[in-house]
Amino acid sequence: MTYTVQIKVMPLKELLDPQGKAVKGGLESLGLNSIEDVRIGKNISLLIEAENPDRAKQIAEEASKKLLANPVMEYFEINVN
Amino acid sequence: MTYTVQIKVMPLKELLDPQGKAVKGGLESLGLNSIEDVRIGKNISLLIEAENPDRAKQIAEEASKKLLANPVMEYFEINVN
Repeated sequence: MTYTVQIKVMPLKELLDPQGKAVKGGLESLGLNSIEDVRIGKNISLLIEAENPDRAKQIAEEASKKLLANPVMEYFEINVN
Repeated sequence: MTYTVQIKVMPLKELLDPQGKAVKGGLESLGLNSIEDVRIGKNISLLIEAENPDRAKQIAEEASKKLLANPVMEYFEINVN
């Protein structure tokens, strides 16, 4: 069966996010002052052929560790639909 | 109150995603052949000061339309936690 797996890759909470900071500045200059913090990461959508959802999640985890996320700067979360 | 709002910005389904295609090639060369498609977008996490969740969602929508997503190439989804 084919599963759609969403992987959210975000900068670690302990680290600064210069891209997010720049976007926050942009939003403020557009008049959106109630936004207190912005953090920007990736959302990766995978279509995985697997026997069951657990196996699909396992494959997504392997992909994240090997290629999609950099553990020095990022953490990831996996959701199987 | 402060709300955490997640915005998922993804390339429109009708469009090719060259970045996703490149990553798919990378995953295949790592031996992950059961991944049939890869699409890559952004995940933006906002911290919004608002009276209620509906208002927070409204602010996030305004930010998405004005700055965060390009409607010619991308669609967005908002989740208030």
